[in-house]
Amino acid sequence: MERVGLAVIGAGYWGPNLVRNAQATPGLRLEYLCDLDRERAGRVLGEYSTVRAGDSLEEVLGDPAVSAVAIATPAATHLKVAMAALEAGKHVLVEKPLATNLAEGRQLTAAAERRGLVLMLDHTYCYTPAVRHLRELIRSGGVGSIQYLDSVRINLGLVQPDVDVLWDLAPHDLSVFDAILPDGVRPVAVAAHGSDPIGAGRACVAHLTIRLSGGAMAHVHVNWLSPTKIRTMVIGGSRRTAVWDDLNPSQRLSIYDRGVETYDPAELPPEKREQTIVSYRVGEMVAPALTEQEALRAVMAEFAGSIRERRSPLTDGRSGLRVLALLEAATESLRSDGAFVEIPEETV
Amino acid sequence: MERVGLAVIGAGYWGPNLVRNAQATPGLRLEYLCDLDRERAGRVLGEYSTVRAGDSLEEVLGDPAVSAVAIATPAATHLKVAMAALEAGKHVLVEKPLATNLAEGRQLTAAAERRGLVLMLDHTYCYTPAVRHLRELIRSGGVGSIQYLDSVRINLGLVQPDVDVLWDLAPHDLSVFDAILPDGVRPVAVAAHGSDPIGAGRACVAHLTIRLSGGAMAHVHVNWLSPTKIRTMVIGGSRRTAVWDDLNPSQRLSIYDRGVETYDPAELPPEKREQTIVSYRVGEMVAPALTEQEALRAVMAEFAGSIRERRSPLTDGRSGLRVLALLEAATESLRSDGAFVEIPEETV
Amino acid sequence: MERVGLAVIGAGYWGPNLVRNAQATPGLRLEYLCDLDRERAGRVLGEYSTVRAGDSLEEVLGDPAVSAVAIATPAATHLKVAMAALEAGKHVLVEKPLATNLAEGRQLTAAAERRGLVLMLDHTYCYTPAVRHLRELIRSGGVGSIQYLDSVRINLGLVQPDVDVLWDLAPHDLSVFDAILPDGVRPVAVAAHGSDPIGAGRACVAHLTIRLSGGAMAHVHVNWLSPTKIRTMVIGGSRRTAVWDDLNPSQRLSIYDRGVETYDPAELPPEKREQTIVSYRVGEMVAPALTEQEALRAVMAEFAGSIRERRSPLTDGRSGLRVLALLEAATESLRSDGAFVEIPEETV
Amino acid sequence: MERVGLAVIGAGYWGPNLVRNAQATPGLRLEYLCDLDRERAGRVLGEYSTVRAGDSLEEVLGDPAVSAVAIATPAATHLKVAMAALEAGKHVLVEKPLATNLAEGRQLTAAAERRGLVLMLDHTYCYTPAVRHLRELIRSGGVGSIQYLDSVRINLGLVQPDVDVLWDLAPHDLSVFDAILPDGVRPVAVAAHGSDPIGAGRACVAHLTIRLSGGAMAHVHVNWLSPTKIRTMVIGGSRRTAVWDDLNPSQRLSIYDRGVETYDPAELPPEKREQTIVSYRVGEMVAPALTEQEALRAVMAEFAGSIRERRSPLTDGRSGLRVLALLEAATESLRSDGAFVEIPEETV
Repeated sequence: MERVGLAVIGAGYWGPNLVRNAQATPGLRLEYLCDLDRERAGRVLGEYSTVRAGDSLEEVLGDPAVSAVAIATPAATHLKVAMAALEAGKHVLVEKPLATNLAEGRQLTAAAERRGLVLMLDHTYCYTPAVRHLRELIRSGGVGSIQYLDSVRINLGLVQPDVDVLWDLAPHDLSVFDAILPDGVRPVAVAAHGSDPIGAGRACVAHLTIRLSGGAMAHVHVNWLSPTKIRTMVIGGSRRTAVWDDLNPSQRLSIYDRGVETYDPAELPPEKREQTIVSYRVGEMVAPALTEQEALRAVMAEFAGSIRERRSPLTDGRSGLRVLALLEAATESLRSDGAFVEIPEETV
Repeated sequence: MERVGLAVIGAGYWGPNLVRNAQATPGLRLEYLCDLDRERAGRVLGEYSTVRAGDSLEEVLGDPAVSAVAIATPAATHLKVAMAALEAGKHVLVEKPLATNLAEGRQLTAAAERRGLVLMLDHTYCYTPAVRHLRELIRSGGVGSIQYLDSVRINLGLVQPDVDVLWDLAPHDLSVFDAILPDGVRPVAVAAHGSDPIGAGRACVAHLTIRLSGGAMAHVHVNWLSPTKIRTMVIGGSRRTAVWDDLNPSQRLSIYDRGVETYDPAELPPEKREQTIVSYRVGEMVAPALTEQEALRAVMAEFAGSIRERRSPLTDGRSGLRVLALLEAATESLRSDGAFVEIPEETV
Repeated sequence: MERVGLAVIGAGYWGPNLVRNAQATPGLRLEYLCDLDRERAGRVLGEYSTVRAGDSLEEVLGDPAVSAVAIATPAATHLKVAMAALEAGKHVLVEKPLATNLAEGRQLTAAAERRGLVLMLDHTYCYTPAVRHLRELIRSGGVGSIQYLDSVRINLGLVQPDVDVLWDLAPHDLSVFDAILPDGVRPVAVAAHGSDPIGAGRACVAHLTIRLSGGAMAHVHVNWLSPTKIRTMVIGGSRRTAVWDDLNPSQRLSIYDRGVETYDPAELPPEKREQTIVSYRVGEMVAPALTEQEALRAVMAEFAGSIRERRSPLTDGRSGLRVLALLEAATESLRSDGAFVEIPEETV
Repeated sequence: MERVGLAVIGAGYWGPNLVRNAQATPGLRLEYLCDLDRERAGRVLGEYSTVRAGDSLEEVLGDPAVSAVAIATPAATHLKVAMAALEAGKHVLVEKPLATNLAEGRQLTAAAERRGLVLMLDHTYCYTPAVRHLRELIRSGGVGSIQYLDSVRINLGLVQPDVDVLWDLAPHDLSVFDAILPDGVRPVAVAAHGSDPIGAGRACVAHLTIRLSGGAMAHVHVNWLSPTKIRTMVIGGSRRTAVWDDLNPSQRLSIYDRGVETYDPAELPPEKREQTIVSYRVGEMVAPALTEQEALRAVMAEFAGSIRERRSPLTDGRSGLRVLALLEAATESLRSDGAFVEIPEETV
């Protein structure tokens, strides 16, 4: 198997994780860790590494040993860095969010498609065993029709200097929604509320309410100020309800055979049609056995695989666009006092 | 000590709890359990009781042995039943919500004030040791200035035939907010989103976003369709953050010495004023020792005490009005696609 | 249906629970609550009750309206009180332990059998939905062969004036073992270690190690001095392992399809027979849906049912003897520095 | 600062962790990873490493660049490998247990002392922030006098081919006891029960009961067959009780101001001297803020520091001997049907 020569760009918070996982991926050959601050890149690699530290994007992109780059620089630089890589003919894996707005994102997907290059989003959570299980369960009809989604992602987080809590944390929730929702259930509009109680200059607590095309509602709560850490997603369905608790390693997924149903009055005898007929189902809960596996390892394998097999990755550029569209609409809603903002049709 | 003669009205879901706790309260003498269905009242009392079962509100209100009533009938009947009791000169304890709208509620508070009678809301949670501790902690400055409030109250609940999930569950959260918030931090406006994914004819999942006069935001999530039960409230403050988990009997309250703060740039040297200065504090967590005590016992004692001492109870009619005002505004917001609706000044 | 006239004897810690549940049991008619301290009995009944308070056991046993008694007096009085009741021709429900030693217990079972009266132990936990589920699961082969049992019952408990922690708490664990173990898996010998670190004059922390006839080992940890409350039992089997957490109302039972197995070397090719062949199975976990029901209600129903149907109750006198035999042997082991003490064959 | 040249010996389960942490320790310079299977060593290092893979202990010990070794080979080889290293003048860090019996262990400590070399045990848990906090709390009197210790370490573990569950898991618990107990509270005797319900040829479930010189009792439960993972230690004291839950990253330590106390009858008025006087204290719980830090990083720093400063490390050879003495006595007790076996005085 020929291996894909890779350069990691950005030696900040996430870069070291890319480096570590790239080194452990058989289909990749790590060539460079590149950062404007070459010393930082060197420190991340450590003194025992044969990987090259660099500070010149140009040099890295000019090296024929490099056929792909993984970009972990601030979002504001994604357009420039990723575009340069695509123009140099390199496949690109990019940190979420794809770019700082939808227009920029479209430039990148267009460039990649034009050149037949892989453009993949590092939507890491989509590669966890839990989300893969959820995706299969939901898309195979195991939860029935979607009734509601609720995602909470809160803890004492780093107040980012450049983005608000929505752009920092919600891409995780939104990309998971994107991966697990069945075809035909797509975000139609979003309303957002945010607050900045510490005077940070940007929202530190935010709530998103998303209307889905099937009529259900999704809600996301992201918060940098919570002393306790919660990462929970509930997917309520007509047949089953799934609860994903990412912080409970011994039981990350719980699938409940529980729910509330109403009967179609038309199927009932006339004298009962007046009242709402509700039935409750309280059955067992099943926690499937999940392999413990670092999601980023699977991200790297998917990147290498999609390059080798010349196919679209699970979290391709268009999934990045769909997340961007939601973030952009949410930001507009924040500015409009929480009014619903529609999601552009083409990205839905 | 002379005891207050009491009649409980309504032998449905909550009535039996009122009966049991009234019997255990030294300051009360339970005379009747009254229900339109006298047999139901009889079944609740059981065969070993000397308390009278009745089905005539008129008879009960005409009995001079009765000087107070506790009303646990559906909300739609509160105006009629409570007004009849007040007009008969009886003190009134009424289930939440006080009435089905603010106008009705005002009639009741006006009637009680005119006659000098106690009108008390059974905001049960306000009488739990946890909420009493929170109230004291917050109002004495222990959490500093309020940064945000977040309340989640979800489980597989009974879909009510007459009210939506907001009117069914949110009075609990709103009455606790009302009890614990310091003077000067009051709800100013509310936005609500709801959904009815099972076709029940009313919202089964709802989210409230409340603007507080101090600038902070409160959020409430109520849900009848969740397979898991959560009852958690977070009160984020500049000095400490409190987490109340009502379903964790061994640690209902956790007070965290954690938070994020920004510095006033004016206090900083000029070269640092450009950037946001944030500091993180991660200190210990203290779980105070709380007495385990049934809250409804304390409700009954407060009702008896306020009658005897001719004083206003902790959860008086005006607290009921403030909760009604929020619910009414939330309902209007639901109808207006989630737009913020202001809370009438006089009830704030 | 003719109802069984019942007297409850003992108005201390447990008596009020018997009174409350007896009143709610259709097959019973509660006649008396009897205590040496009649005022205490009166206080327990409260002022609204038609049940008679008494202080004369003789009077109660002489009343033909009483055909059964439920005894909740200290263990040291069980022989005298229960024997008097049996001699008066009354059926007897008695708190655990049956008596203070095996010889006394045998007097009681003999007397009941001689007279054809029901003698039932209030082994309350055996009537919880969780233990009933476990019993059925285990006895139907659902966990395979028993590999080990482990029970932990610790919290900040009342240091009893008359018994040590073993006699106070372990009857719960031992009676559950007795109820759930399949025929043919019985305690053969027990070793006990205890300590009294606070100078209470009796063991406050104790550990039991029990050899079962199938070769497996059961362990019980009881502790009055733990600041945290734990009530967990693990039943390890060759097919499944069940974990019962009595303090987790949302998931009291977890049935794991997990385990470790060894292969019979005889079934292996010669070159592999030297090494132990171990295989691990990590499958899903299922939490069965259990009805929430007060166990003592089921105790009362079983008592009434066994009297009416003239049959042996689930927790009959012989189950009480088997628990006594274990406690007595454990006490002897405590005195013998933890040496194993055999359980008399006849009670096994 | 001159760095200590290090070789890691053994590329099996634990070796990679030693390699990773050694590389991140400023005071160390990793020279070799040595394994009888050189390819395995190579795979552990990976293709991007400049560290040398080797298969000759002799070569490594003969290299003057190496002044210390970290040994992660099976326990049965510790005597040979560690002795060779000491004889070559190298400082030694060795996995627990120090050796397979006390006599071997003494040879190693004697050899190290004779040559003035550091001999350190990798008792990893002793270097966690939680245990360091416990050690300080207990030794400074914060929990008062020790009343009992209880440690549970169970999960679906690898059945080891060469050692039983006691030798595999209990060194963790015993080394922590050794680190946190105040001077003067030492193990005096141990009784052990074990069982092998799967026919593995060695105990897979075991319980240790340890008598401490102060009169208190410690208990350890280790288990390879549990479907759920528990790692909890309780240290009961007269002033406070500490609970360490190693699997709860958000609250690893809980310090309870709770307990039971008896009064000295001599201090009581004569009429009360007959009864045991017990008082209960239920105060708050404090969860101290602990830094999250990989313990093995601190092990490496302590190893480097003790070499540089020519001092004894926290977990020196003698702590290894004390753990060995307990394990050896426990094994003898297992063979003697659970009889107490005394711990040799010299190691106490």
